[in-house]
Amino acid sequence: MILTVTLNAALDLTYRVPALRPHTSHRVTDVAERPGGKGLNVARVLAALGHEVTVTGFTGGDTGRLIRERLTGAVDAFVPVRGSSRRTVAVVDARTGDTTQLNEPGPLITPAEWSAFLAAYEELVAGAEAVALCGSLPPGVPVGAYAGLVRTARTAGVPVLLDTSGEPLRRGVAARPDIVKPNADELAELTGSHEPLRATQDARRRGARAVVASLGSEGLVAATEEGRWRATPPARLRGNPTGAGDSVSAGLLSALAEGLAWPDRLSRAVALSAATVLSPTAGDFDRTAYEDLTNRVTVTGEATAA
Amino acid sequence: MILTVTLNAALDLTYRVPALRPHTSHRVTDVAERPGGKGLNVARVLAALGHEVTVTGFTGGDTGRLIRERLTGAVDAFVPVRGSSRRTVAVVDARTGDTTQLNEPGPLITPAEWSAFLAAYEELVAGAEAVALCGSLPPGVPVGAYAGLVRTARTAGVPVLLDTSGEPLRRGVAARPDIVKPNADELAELTGSHEPLRATQDARRRGARAVVASLGSEGLVAATEEGRWRATPPARLRGNPTGAGDSVSAGLLSALAEGLAWPDRLSRAVALSAATVLSPTAGDFDRTAYEDLTNRVTVTGEATAA
Repeated sequence: MILTVTLNAALDLTYRVPALRPHTSHRVTDVAERPGGKGLNVARVLAALGHEVTVTGFTGGDTGRLIRERLTGAVDAFVPVRGSSRRTVAVVDARTGDTTQLNEPGPLITPAEWSAFLAAYEELVAGAEAVALCGSLPPGVPVGAYAGLVRTARTAGVPVLLDTSGEPLRRGVAARPDIVKPNADELAELTGSHEPLRATQDARRRGARAVVASLGSEGLVAATEEGRWRATPPARLRGNPTGAGDSVSAGLLSALAEGLAWPDRLSRAVALSAATVLSPTAGDFDRTAYEDLTNRVTVTGEATAA
Repeated sequence: MILTVTLNAALDLTYRVPALRPHTSHRVTDVAERPGGKGLNVARVLAALGHEVTVTGFTGGDTGRLIRERLTGAVDAFVPVRGSSRRTVAVVDARTGDTTQLNEPGPLITPAEWSAFLAAYEELVAGAEAVALCGSLPPGVPVGAYAGLVRTARTAGVPVLLDTSGEPLRRGVAARPDIVKPNADELAELTGSHEPLRATQDARRRGARAVVASLGSEGLVAATEEGRWRATPPARLRGNPTGAGDSVSAGLLSALAEGLAWPDRLSRAVALSAATVLSPTAGDFDRTAYEDLTNRVTVTGEATAA
């Protein structure tokens, strides 16, 4: 079983409007609704790849109930809280395809709720083959939360991937996660460098055992104990990048769980990410495209001398 | 009991953001949530004024359940439908105070559901002292719906107010409602005239027994069988106009139910509307301001010679 943690789970709404004009009224022509937050997106892709997945984090209130009712393909191990889970609204401008994002803040987590989560997490980690810690922290959760969750997984000998940003990422990296997966902005914020190769190396020196940076349409750069690689899709892709980063995390974890070497992990992650961009539904991946792309990703680089 | 009809009831979400910038991501700093749709807004104000109120229309799905759970002060006579009630999102830019509105379309009403509503409505009207028909029609409801509902009320001898727009207003007016309450844009669309005094007269000729046009901060103009009046608040008001039009409807119905003459109905409607603009919460009215304003509204005009 792979465990994904979504501390700030959401009900993601996608609204299509003919054209977004601030300070006017819009008729929404199409409404889509599904559970979200990065950890739940990762879980959905892992389940589609055939993995057993358990999801945890916090859910509460009416929105929390809707999130749980709509979970498919994953075992629900969410910890209930008194506050109400958040909604997010993505407003897609049908004319340009651009998205305007509105994110509710999420429930205030009490110290007792955080303790209940830590106990549940420790038990779940013991039965997991890998753990993904993903996304922002809801109010009330300590900023060093991910560092503690990384240490718990490492103590249990379970590989752990961290995908977050800002201070939670900075603190989490120092706890030595197996993989961190920042995008270019998050990597630059962490390291102060806008040069991805240099920045991934720098992020490793800060504690991460492997750093996989997602560079959008240019693919991935990875710095690991076993070597450094760059993995690129066969062609520049047009489509909706929503969820592409979560598909990278799912691809890395899936390949790790199957015992694949780093170049194959990166190929899978790039193919899944590209197949997510190509999917007509935001955050889903196009299975035919994925199977077609898997052998067409270019991985260059070198393994560290043994 | 006053009956308000909301065929396209909604769960209204209000999101406050520091500044709305299209095609970027926003942290929502404040979330408010409550039942909406014009008929429910009118019902809330009527209940606050001490009237017994029954609300009907359609609700369905998870959002419909949330609307019903959050009703206060009114008897719930909603007709359940298979589709899902809509949400609306009002995004308030904290910098400018401007609002960007996103409206989901509402559930598709089947012919059987529409028939079930008509039967329920006829029974409710028989016990009502006045009826308010408010807002847009959900998909599937015939465009002449309000005309039929007006006729049912008139046959039962119950005064009926209509507040809608476009073709449903045009058809509804022809069925001779006791009061129509368009705003300046709706009135111009109905009559082709942008001159409010002329347009209210024209709207009467189209069938409405009384036309009360809301002109925003300039108050109301009314053309009735008993005379023509203009009612204006004591000063130009700064605040949030959301719900001010619904407070006009509530004021007119409340005063009608109490048997007040037209000038007093208009005073109450303007005072309530102004007290809604002054309220810190969108769509609520400031009771102290309302009581203070009631005697300070200027009503000019003349009664028709008896």
